[in-house]
Amino acid sequence: MAAFVSFWSFRMRTFRLVIACPDGVGIVAKVSNFLATYNGWITEASHHSDNHNGWFFMRHEIRADSLPFDIDGFRQAFAPIAKQFSMEWRITDSEQKKRVVLMASRESHCLADLLHRWHSDELDCDIPCVISNHNDLRSMVEWHGIPFHHVPVNPLDKAPAFAEVTRLVREAGADVVVLARYMQILPPDLCQEFAQRVINIHHSFLPSFIGAKPYHQASLRGVKLIGATSHYVTEELDAGPIIEQDVVRISHRDSIEELVRLGKDVEKMVLARGLRYHLEDRVLVHNNKTVVFD
Amino acid sequence: MAAFVSFWSFRMRTFRLVIACPDGVGIVAKVSNFLATYNGWITEASHHSDNHNGWFFMRHEIRADSLPFDIDGFRQAFAPIAKQFSMEWRITDSEQKKRVVLMASRESHCLADLLHRWHSDELDCDIPCVISNHNDLRSMVEWHGIPFHHVPVNPLDKAPAFAEVTRLVREAGADVVVLARYMQILPPDLCQEFAQRVINIHHSFLPSFIGAKPYHQASLRGVKLIGATSHYVTEELDAGPIIEQDVVRISHRDSIEELVRLGKDVEKMVLARGLRYHLEDRVLVHNNKTVVFD
Amino acid sequence: MAAFVSFWSFRMRTFRLVIACPDGVGIVAKVSNFLATYNGWITEASHHSDNHNGWFFMRHEIRADSLPFDIDGFRQAFAPIAKQFSMEWRITDSEQKKRVVLMASRESHCLADLLHRWHSDELDCDIPCVISNHNDLRSMVEWHGIPFHHVPVNPLDKAPAFAEVTRLVREAGADVVVLARYMQILPPDLCQEFAQRVINIHHSFLPSFIGAKPYHQASLRGVKLIGATSHYVTEELDAGPIIEQDVVRISHRDSIEELVRLGKDVEKMVLARGLRYHLEDRVLVHNNKTVVFD
Amino acid sequence: MAAFVSFWSFRMRTFRLVIACPDGVGIVAKVSNFLATYNGWITEASHHSDNHNGWFFMRHEIRADSLPFDIDGFRQAFAPIAKQFSMEWRITDSEQKKRVVLMASRESHCLADLLHRWHSDELDCDIPCVISNHNDLRSMVEWHGIPFHHVPVNPLDKAPAFAEVTRLVREAGADVVVLARYMQILPPDLCQEFAQRVINIHHSFLPSFIGAKPYHQASLRGVKLIGATSHYVTEELDAGPIIEQDVVRISHRDSIEELVRLGKDVEKMVLARGLRYHLEDRVLVHNNKTVVFD
Repeated sequence: MAAFVSFWSFRMRTFRLVIACPDGVGIVAKVSNFLATYNGWITEASHHSDNHNGWFFMRHEIRADSLPFDIDGFRQAFAPIAKQFSMEWRITDSEQKKRVVLMASRESHCLADLLHRWHSDELDCDIPCVISNHNDLRSMVEWHGIPFHHVPVNPLDKAPAFAEVTRLVREAGADVVVLARYMQILPPDLCQEFAQRVINIHHSFLPSFIGAKPYHQASLRGVKLIGATSHYVTEELDAGPIIEQDVVRISHRDSIEELVRLGKDVEKMVLARGLRYHLEDRVLVHNNKTVVFD
Repeated sequence: MAAFVSFWSFRMRTFRLVIACPDGVGIVAKVSNFLATYNGWITEASHHSDNHNGWFFMRHEIRADSLPFDIDGFRQAFAPIAKQFSMEWRITDSEQKKRVVLMASRESHCLADLLHRWHSDELDCDIPCVISNHNDLRSMVEWHGIPFHHVPVNPLDKAPAFAEVTRLVREAGADVVVLARYMQILPPDLCQEFAQRVINIHHSFLPSFIGAKPYHQASLRGVKLIGATSHYVTEELDAGPIIEQDVVRISHRDSIEELVRLGKDVEKMVLARGLRYHLEDRVLVHNNKTVVFD
Repeated sequence: MAAFVSFWSFRMRTFRLVIACPDGVGIVAKVSNFLATYNGWITEASHHSDNHNGWFFMRHEIRADSLPFDIDGFRQAFAPIAKQFSMEWRITDSEQKKRVVLMASRESHCLADLLHRWHSDELDCDIPCVISNHNDLRSMVEWHGIPFHHVPVNPLDKAPAFAEVTRLVREAGADVVVLARYMQILPPDLCQEFAQRVINIHHSFLPSFIGAKPYHQASLRGVKLIGATSHYVTEELDAGPIIEQDVVRISHRDSIEELVRLGKDVEKMVLARGLRYHLEDRVLVHNNKTVVFD
Repeated sequence: MAAFVSFWSFRMRTFRLVIACPDGVGIVAKVSNFLATYNGWITEASHHSDNHNGWFFMRHEIRADSLPFDIDGFRQAFAPIAKQFSMEWRITDSEQKKRVVLMASRESHCLADLLHRWHSDELDCDIPCVISNHNDLRSMVEWHGIPFHHVPVNPLDKAPAFAEVTRLVREAGADVVVLARYMQILPPDLCQEFAQRVINIHHSFLPSFIGAKPYHQASLRGVKLIGATSHYVTEELDAGPIIEQDVVRISHRDSIEELVRLGKDVEKMVLARGLRYHLEDRVLVHNNKTVVFD
């Protein structure tokens, strides 16, 4: 077989224009017109009108080399339109890799999965560091050339640990923090500071089995499918906006240990997909729900 | 193409031996030995040891024509073994069709699905009658040659209606009652009289979204999959032993009306599979959970 | 529970603008601008650029009551834009129900499924008639108030039958013909006359197991999943553009008869979804492949 | 959260008795009786009668500490029964870890996945070495403490490379060889020497898209799902007994590069599941098909 040449090397530079605003006539035309005026080559376009709450969502991916300005120029040129329609909006550059801080505890499956996807160029981001309350995964992380910070959490006084975590996350210039089975509840101020920028993987099909030991809860209830949920962390436990979910079939033959094993694969997939959507600016949050332009 | 010749006409007569008892060494040998002694031709055998609670489950399907006795003869011959191992057990004859009373309200999808499966010989049972609190589905039911009973439920005094329902179910000699989106909560005495013989379809992936309007609840929470659950009815709402579940992917584009539409297909499948398992004596209940030998 | 009030009664009248053309800058802007100029209220918009062959696909759904013209007025006003970009395009009116002729043989599952979806207002179309080469399903069809035509096919001389089928389809003013397990191969001239307007359900996951007895083929090969495919009929057997596919898991325990039974549910789903996409003008065909804006 | 204590440390030692033979009355009884005579504690039992070819399959898992003999003693004691029923059979000891030689090329996803599962104690086997025709994955393999052999394949004369591969596999005492996207076709003599002991992952839903570039073939045909297949290697390309398959939904939006990316996750899952079944002696091959007692 011929050598596999990564297609990522040919990844085209794009700008991603992401908009949410009150719905109304003419928004699409105005935005499309703006892009056409500057000969913007649209490679992907997605719209959504939420008829229940009258909100409009939009995402465009535009070839950067087709536009006559850089991202700041775009911002200036587009600002009047954004103002006119009261848009919440952002424009991002696909070449500005997002900085992802990973947090884990002792279980390696989600962390190993994300590291491998990053290492094989499947996840387009930088990983400035990994933070863990245990030291077990240090060697695996460091093999990837990524700094590993061990921040033990004293169950009687967690504040110092989270102060240190906050410091490290800030220092890393994190765009997003991923709780890859971190197994600690973040304090409210951290949740607020990084609102919609902390992604957690919960090992159940939320809203079923919130909190601790969801596989035990699932086994006790006798469900026939188990699942996992990636969501943005909010102050209320396991109640933040859901980004992605999936399930796997189980049977009476599966002990709790089997549920744990089968669940791991769902957790990995659901977290990796959720993170990918976030990195590609495909997730818009409104009313504690997400629009995911996949 | 040549005409399709139903394979059901060649369905072989079998006895189904279903056993649950405390686990221990020698049960399988004893039962297998018993069957071999009488030259029983086993067409299907399933075992399950639940290590958590020390319980053992077993199901055999045996060609009736290979045995030297009828079902009563089997019962007598097997009784000593059952007693020795403190078995809860039953033996059923595949030619003794179970009698299934269907109950529905106004929505037709589950009822139409079950009636078609029955009509095309896919569900091996008798349907002595359909009971509904509305008259809407009468014509559809009667086209199938099945009696339709309209028993309106007075919301201010439901007792007379349920007395009539109970009378009809008894009169029909029902082995099992299927709530095919009946949308009324059965009174406790009915639940008790027909324990493990009333199958309900709930239009959510239990234990999420118990009670009314689960699709609205699902939409509000922003889940990415919706589901359905068939379960035995107990006095506690939507908390009985789960027989079968399934899900379907949804997205932000799907309004509640779309969830209702997509959910219908899952409901139909999950109810039909659950009923089939029950009819074929594949479901064993223990500790509010099911073993399903599919 | 309160009575279920069909949401379909509130279905809004929309125009659907469906476009395929060579890709280029400014198409979206031009179309959006056109719609905005006339205050068109876009309820759904979908784009796709196929980078491999440089083709662009677009579908808009627009509230009819927001536009100042009827569908003919729309056609006239839009024609210059369509010409400028060499568009293949159409505009349809959601209130102009498509006329669907169903064809079946002896097996009832797909036909019964579609009839029930139509009868319960889930499929938004008219069904002028059902044509079958056997008489078995007459009563079921006629109960729905739909004319049933029995057109036997003489295996030694099929031409007269297909002449009659063609006559009936034309007479019915069919927009689309659905082969709901019709089990006869249509002659080439019929395929040509109704190109991209005949939908077939094939009972395998194409391109595996083309032709006769796909479940037997699947069993022989020992696959672990079986599937079904809805596709537009072309002159080459089972090689037309695929609209929708799905699969179901099987195991060594499943005999061919079980495969047939399990497959039926997949066939029903895949055909119903494919037809729905077609009826809502969501399917665009290019290079023997489909773009499905679901 | 408390530290996760691996349940694998408590894995119980079992013997696995795997049998295939012509079907007949009394086999189950004889085997069960044998086990009961020696007080064998059965933790899992599976049977299958293939009615089409009259073959019977059986697998028992028995607690080793419940039996009065070791595995050789078992063999001697059981031999007469095996002979009586013309059984193909084997008995394996769960503590005798199977030796798995992994082969890969340049793509890392399947190899990394298997190595991580092994490293985190999810796959119960030894990995004596990894063989690759490229050097790219050496560092990843060696981090796991596993020897890495680089055996380049000269496209003009492959024989020397395969002679070396054969030598290495023999030297490693391999019970099973896994082609984790090795991308080279094994020569017939190697296929024969290791019949039913070489597992390949093919990146399509076989029998669709046999041979090279299946994702390109899938894109060209316009399928709506893509899949992967793990199977035993035979001399005929991609035609060996299928162990496991799965699929993932795609759409017109997905380029071939996206198919490759999405397919990787299916490949990993399907290969890992297939290997697990093999390691736990759950796969029985007959007539180029598998019985998988999962």
